[in-house]
Amino acid sequence: MAPARRTHDARQTLEHLLREAAANEKVIGFAGGLPSEKLFPRSRLARAFVRAMARAGAPGLQYGWAEGSVGLRAFFAERLGRRGAQVTADDVIVTSGAQQAIAIALQLAAPRGGRVALDDDTYPALLDLLRARGLRPVSTLDAAPCAYAMPAIANPCGHGASPSRRRDLLDSGAFVVEDDAYADLHFAGPPPPPLLAQARERVFHVGTLSKILCPGLRIGWLVPPPIFRERALALKQGADLQASSLGQAVVEDYLSGSGVRRASSSLAGNGRLDFDARLVRLRTFYRRRAETLAQAIACHLPSWRFAFPEGGFAIWASTEERLDEAGFLAAAVEEGVSFDPGSQFRADSRDGRPTALRLCFSSVNPVKVDEGMRRLARAFRRAVRRGAATPRS
Amino acid sequence: MAPARRTHDARQTLEHLLREAAANEKVIGFAGGLPSEKLFPRSRLARAFVRAMARAGAPGLQYGWAEGSVGLRAFFAERLGRRGAQVTADDVIVTSGAQQAIAIALQLAAPRGGRVALDDDTYPALLDLLRARGLRPVSTLDAAPCAYAMPAIANPCGHGASPSRRRDLLDSGAFVVEDDAYADLHFAGPPPPPLLAQARERVFHVGTLSKILCPGLRIGWLVPPPIFRERALALKQGADLQASSLGQAVVEDYLSGSGVRRASSSLAGNGRLDFDARLVRLRTFYRRRAETLAQAIACHLPSWRFAFPEGGFAIWASTEERLDEAGFLAAAVEEGVSFDPGSQFRADSRDGRPTALRLCFSSVNPVKVDEGMRRLARAFRRAVRRGAATPRS
Repeated sequence: MAPARRTHDARQTLEHLLREAAANEKVIGFAGGLPSEKLFPRSRLARAFVRAMARAGAPGLQYGWAEGSVGLRAFFAERLGRRGAQVTADDVIVTSGAQQAIAIALQLAAPRGGRVALDDDTYPALLDLLRARGLRPVSTLDAAPCAYAMPAIANPCGHGASPSRRRDLLDSGAFVVEDDAYADLHFAGPPPPPLLAQARERVFHVGTLSKILCPGLRIGWLVPPPIFRERALALKQGADLQASSLGQAVVEDYLSGSGVRRASSSLAGNGRLDFDARLVRLRTFYRRRAETLAQAIACHLPSWRFAFPEGGFAIWASTEERLDEAGFLAAAVEEGVSFDPGSQFRADSRDGRPTALRLCFSSVNPVKVDEGMRRLARAFRRAVRRGAATPRS
Repeated sequence: MAPARRTHDARQTLEHLLREAAANEKVIGFAGGLPSEKLFPRSRLARAFVRAMARAGAPGLQYGWAEGSVGLRAFFAERLGRRGAQVTADDVIVTSGAQQAIAIALQLAAPRGGRVALDDDTYPALLDLLRARGLRPVSTLDAAPCAYAMPAIANPCGHGASPSRRRDLLDSGAFVVEDDAYADLHFAGPPPPPLLAQARERVFHVGTLSKILCPGLRIGWLVPPPIFRERALALKQGADLQASSLGQAVVEDYLSGSGVRRASSSLAGNGRLDFDARLVRLRTFYRRRAETLAQAIACHLPSWRFAFPEGGFAIWASTEERLDEAGFLAAAVEEGVSFDPGSQFRADSRDGRPTALRLCFSSVNPVKVDEGMRRLARAFRRAVRRGAATPRS
């Protein structure tokens, strides 16, 4: 069987196992990178929806312009401005999540068949996109016309880029797709300046409300370099006409504050303060969950290595043991626990790096974390025993 | 100036005028193809939203699978089944509106740089997509590997494909992207069988709730030929991960009937009957609006020619007068009325066809239609007077 086909089949096997695990309520799920539903502001969103329905013309149900709501674009621009980027509402395009923003940015920044420089471990859906577009992932910035990076907080490792890595990205001359999805979940506080602030002409800046509000809204944004703005908007329109009017209307109302305060507030006023307070709560919430998981890993899987994350949703852990990844995941699901297999985050699985996995603490009830790691340790012991007999593929 | 640049600038001019018109409440707007906001079931959607918020895990706010909600997919499949297509929920992919479904279908059916057969007058965002992808629009099916068609009700003409045109599409051997957006708005009653029912292996079937429920939800669907299903789903995931969970959850609840009836209903039960009743109301509503507009055109613009539409949102009218299109639209906006310029629906504007325009009756209050056509007639007279002096570009 050809390597590409084998890799494809291996991915299918993992996907099948992960879907099975997600559908089984008895499985303690550390896979998927979901935000905690406990942080979804359901009541406030419901009130926002009812008010949005009552607006003249019901813009939340009607068609809108491709670039998205001016209120949201101003809100995103203002937040970037506070981090040092010179951006106005006109520079921002509301997208159907960060994924669409990345897809558009790559279409403009990376010539078909060209090289895209990546971290060794990176966002799985980015790798899918590169495969679909015939783009070649490379680990060096040399001669790559385009780089993808998550400088604030990277997925899956949970750490920000070092000052030297940031400098290399800026000095490389490449277009940089800056995925800022987890920036506001830096446990230590507000996010660092985006690369956008230092290289407006070469950075495609990508953001999203998926991690800090709700993913189901599908609201992200793209700030392309000014000379690409018109083409980016045309690609956005060609892709799906516009982001969900419903999502935009609900978020816009939500951000403008509750109905009581509405008369005296705006997206740049009380809504902003509320949202900043929300982010402070989120950072504390997820940092505590990270600590709980880190303790449980240290207790039940002492041979696994990881660096405590600076932010985000997950701990990226690795082991020197040779494991059959699909066998390990299957054993884990049998034991009643799931994780994201490390190969999903890697462009190339045939290189002898340690077996790794991503454990998402974000959406697991903390009282189940210890039991989850206990189950994972059992699956790990089973996989190690089998590992001696099964060659790693 | 190069022709491509000139065409681009001309499109920009028209877009600028249309945005200006849309922002001006005094302009009677026959542009844009918007459904009537009077038909948006706001209260029921608001109730559906509140119930969706209360569901365990709040799936309407969380991430979902790329293929979309199984309930919605089953609903769309069942409706296609009633029209003779052998389709199950597994064959359907929920998309972010019809536009995304078309974009994915073209990516699979039309090789880069290849030919796509079209009607002479067609959907503007399709033409934008062809330009962005470097695809070549052609008017003949000969040697085209792919065709785009709206066989049930075409945009902008408002008519279904003739039996011979349907046969040609089926016999051509080409992949057909069947855009069924207006099928349920056939004034005479339920829609004809889709081409999908006759050529499952070669038809990419595209549908949407935008015209029959609300566009702001961004819920469409794609039924690709079975051999393309996996690749279509991968492209969907790469494009934006998934359609809006919020839109899907609200629609799913809405279709399942009101809260009172919920226990005894399902998407295939009461919800289906309610939705069929809704479609009957919509057909009558839009047919009446079409009649009002047709009378007003006949009265105030007697030299314009059009065929009364069989369905949809608009009347496609043409004149033998030579007009500068941008000048005509500018005069119209000055007079307080707007329309969709015919060039937007044509791949090539340099071919001596009559000047045409699309007048959308769908979202115009009927009491304003007569005044709207009175204004358009004034703008037309001004444009004709100027036409003698200004060469058509």
